[in-house]
Amino acid sequence: VGAPVVLLSHRGPVSFERADGQRRAVRGTGGLVTALTGIAQNLGDAVWICGVSTEEDAAVAAEHQPEGVRVSLTAEPRLLAGGEADRPALTVRFVAVDPERHRQFYTEIANPLLWFVQHGLYPLASAPVITPQTWSAFEDGYVAVNERFAAVVADAVAGRDDPLVMLHDYHFYLVPELVRRRAPGATISHFVHIPWPEPDGWRVLPPGMRDRLLAGLLGADVVAFHTDRFARNFLYCAEDVLDAPVDWARRRLSWQGRQVAARAYPISVDAVGLTAAADAPAVHEHRAAIRAAHLGDGRQLIVRVDRTDPSKNVVRGFLAFGELLEEHPELQGRVTFLASLMPSRQDVAEYADYLAEIGAAATAVNARYSRRGWQPVDLRLQEDRSFALAAYAEADVLVVNAVNDGMNLVAKEAVLLSERDVVLLLSENAGAHEELAEPALTVHPYDVVQQAAAMYAALRMPAAERRRRRTAAAEIVRGGDVSRWLQRQLDDLAGLR
Amino acid sequence: VGAPVVLLSHRGPVSFERADGQRRAVRGTGGLVTALTGIAQNLGDAVWICGVSTEEDAAVAAEHQPEGVRVSLTAEPRLLAGGEADRPALTVRFVAVDPERHRQFYTEIANPLLWFVQHGLYPLASAPVITPQTWSAFEDGYVAVNERFAAVVADAVAGRDDPLVMLHDYHFYLVPELVRRRAPGATISHFVHIPWPEPDGWRVLPPGMRDRLLAGLLGADVVAFHTDRFARNFLYCAEDVLDAPVDWARRRLSWQGRQVAARAYPISVDAVGLTAAADAPAVHEHRAAIRAAHLGDGRQLIVRVDRTDPSKNVVRGFLAFGELLEEHPELQGRVTFLASLMPSRQDVAEYADYLAEIGAAATAVNARYSRRGWQPVDLRLQEDRSFALAAYAEADVLVVNAVNDGMNLVAKEAVLLSERDVVLLLSENAGAHEELAEPALTVHPYDVVQQAAAMYAALRMPAAERRRRRTAAAEIVRGGDVSRWLQRQLDDLAGLR
Repeated sequence: VGAPVVLLSHRGPVSFERADGQRRAVRGTGGLVTALTGIAQNLGDAVWICGVSTEEDAAVAAEHQPEGVRVSLTAEPRLLAGGEADRPALTVRFVAVDPERHRQFYTEIANPLLWFVQHGLYPLASAPVITPQTWSAFEDGYVAVNERFAAVVADAVAGRDDPLVMLHDYHFYLVPELVRRRAPGATISHFVHIPWPEPDGWRVLPPGMRDRLLAGLLGADVVAFHTDRFARNFLYCAEDVLDAPVDWARRRLSWQGRQVAARAYPISVDAVGLTAAADAPAVHEHRAAIRAAHLGDGRQLIVRVDRTDPSKNVVRGFLAFGELLEEHPELQGRVTFLASLMPSRQDVAEYADYLAEIGAAATAVNARYSRRGWQPVDLRLQEDRSFALAAYAEADVLVVNAVNDGMNLVAKEAVLLSERDVVLLLSENAGAHEELAEPALTVHPYDVVQQAAAMYAALRMPAAERRRRRTAAAEIVRGGDVSRWLQRQLDDLAGLR
Repeated sequence: VGAPVVLLSHRGPVSFERADGQRRAVRGTGGLVTALTGIAQNLGDAVWICGVSTEEDAAVAAEHQPEGVRVSLTAEPRLLAGGEADRPALTVRFVAVDPERHRQFYTEIANPLLWFVQHGLYPLASAPVITPQTWSAFEDGYVAVNERFAAVVADAVAGRDDPLVMLHDYHFYLVPELVRRRAPGATISHFVHIPWPEPDGWRVLPPGMRDRLLAGLLGADVVAFHTDRFARNFLYCAEDVLDAPVDWARRRLSWQGRQVAARAYPISVDAVGLTAAADAPAVHEHRAAIRAAHLGDGRQLIVRVDRTDPSKNVVRGFLAFGELLEEHPELQGRVTFLASLMPSRQDVAEYADYLAEIGAAATAVNARYSRRGWQPVDLRLQEDRSFALAAYAEADVLVVNAVNDGMNLVAKEAVLLSERDVVLLLSENAGAHEELAEPALTVHPYDVVQQAAAMYAALRMPAAERRRRRTAAAEIVRGGDVSRWLQRQLDDLAGLR
């Protein structure tokens, strides 16, 4: 790399727990953490700033103020003793913020407001309603928390030559400008991992939010996304909302005498690590159980793995499956829809309601089509990584029909791990569609007739075509391996300096 | 004009009723009909093709097949006897379609599907769901009805030299291409009176609808909108969805060897006719009643006049008013919100639900703030044009906070008829905002805090500033008088020939 790197994300690469009086380090989860952890060895003397997520994180942070803790990421993460040199290692700085401010920041503004606006999920006739409480949450929560994290970033940057600052996601849109003010010489990138909407979508936020959030992001040198479409939408928003002049050919704009580029770096998966994980005994046990329950004798399996987020479009997936069984009764008893779903954000009313709708939709299909020895939908509410990897291996069809999705790594993982030449049904609104449209069958998120037709086409597809498509998809995923994802960004940032 | 003109709209300029054995002609309502009727005298030997809306229309149509009926529009519309020469007159051709096809066309596709998509009203996590029934309604209803009307238009065009075909609105997106095929030499414009969304909004429709509807429209020479933003969005959609090359400087695109322009012609009102209508005795009676109930002694009046369409954002208007009374208790008893609302499309579930929410929101404000002799919200569910004109005259503040609106003529009518220098609160998402942003106070449709602050600013605004803004707004409206609206289009179309 050459340059010192300071990273910021809301969830960190490691978190601490205490059990039986012992402190234990746990590797962080989520696509970003997985991606960055996988290539930590390339990052040199990096500092990773993140929020406290457990009480034990807070304790660790308090014991290591202000320098942060050094963490080894080789196998299982662990704290390093003073002076211990185990590479690759990172310095992690946990930032603790007042719980009420954090609640406002996280559960009122970042989720659901920004999440819903950027995924286009609001029923605009009735929501959002921006109230005095929303404005308090924005000012006292989102803005204050961003200022706090920006101060820590600026502190970590101070005294370093030509630092490279890599900021992440919708929690921290105000940080780039705040860091820029205190460290004008820093090279700053900000990666947005969720969809960026078109101007009318962004304008669902009132001017006092949308203008400030955009201007905050324009403190960066590069604003990065998983797709070219999102990068384009971002430039379009800056042009529309802030009147920033855009150079469309170079995908950049002028802002306060600087150039800000919008770039696409589609994230991928750690193919080697993933393949190794899929060989664990627990995965093989799950595979055997799935085969015993649902496969053999020419039966086929449709799979989805998702959080129960309204953006994932689980209900319409079940409606489409019902449509498939109605249109093709010969498939009754011959194909099962296995859905492994992780309940998500159940403290948010929309999420609790959506989980209920998922249950109702699955039950309706089962009530209508079940017969002795066969239930059409096998709905598992669980967070079980081994089960997910097993389901990828055994799936004939994988359904990703998201309403909107920043990338969707399920699609990429599944085509890598498939052992039955899975056919990928991929929403045109998933970020992954920009790379995988050709080998996948494109589905329209709102058209359950078309989704059912795509399921049928996938189930009936000749083996040779399944293999060709699956191999092509896996090639694309391997070619975008996550270490290249970071390297491309680092190369581009080096070019800017 | 010079050229023979053929008009098409779903609602016609006249409709017939039968009462006590007598046939009676009734002038059509709605912004388009008002606008076109007002300038019928400029249209020469025009033929206006429209749908049958009453049984008597069907009877009239059957008696005058296929040539249509000649209708005088001078004062009250009436049928002309054979050979009677009363100018201005129009030939009206009513088109009757099979009721079931019309139901599919109108109440499944045009409303709510296209209306909701173009106003951005769908809660995308759950609706729309494109089912087999939707596809039937599209093919057997919308497509079939468009083919039927296109055949009548082509028939009316046949044998005329250089005909000018002016098609209207979201009911007939497939007609331009169908007419083009049968009359390649015709000059065709299609006016879209509702918002045109950005590509991600349009892509809520599945490819088999969105591509065909766009391609249908591209049979026109000019696709016209009320705002430049909608025209721009349309070009952007054609580029994104159909890969049509766009010449952005000239606001046009290439399609099948032809040029298709996207233009903005903001519709306005018939200032002379409106002023005359506002002087009717019924209006003066309503004004006296409104003053007696709500004004005098320094009291002030906030007014809105709308259909109870979810796009109009009535509920958030009441929430904002409640916020105003909470923040400024000194206004309690001093200001009333008079809402004259016309129940709309109550056969559509979303509309029935929305009316209930309106009632609930108004009642909540009244329950909280009412005191002896004063109720904060005066909610009238009525269709009463005289009352609306009276309310415009007496309003201190007029609220137009629409979620999305193609134009909104209420805003334009009110600033013309105001006798108390009304302050216009105008949503940034109403088409009228493109013309009236300067004299109005812009409101954000989702931010009830900001709407309440705008209400307060309007109520407290010095008289001189109210006058200046109201006068400026009225000037803009008069300058865009509806006869110029048509003339600009005719001039531009002449330039194309």
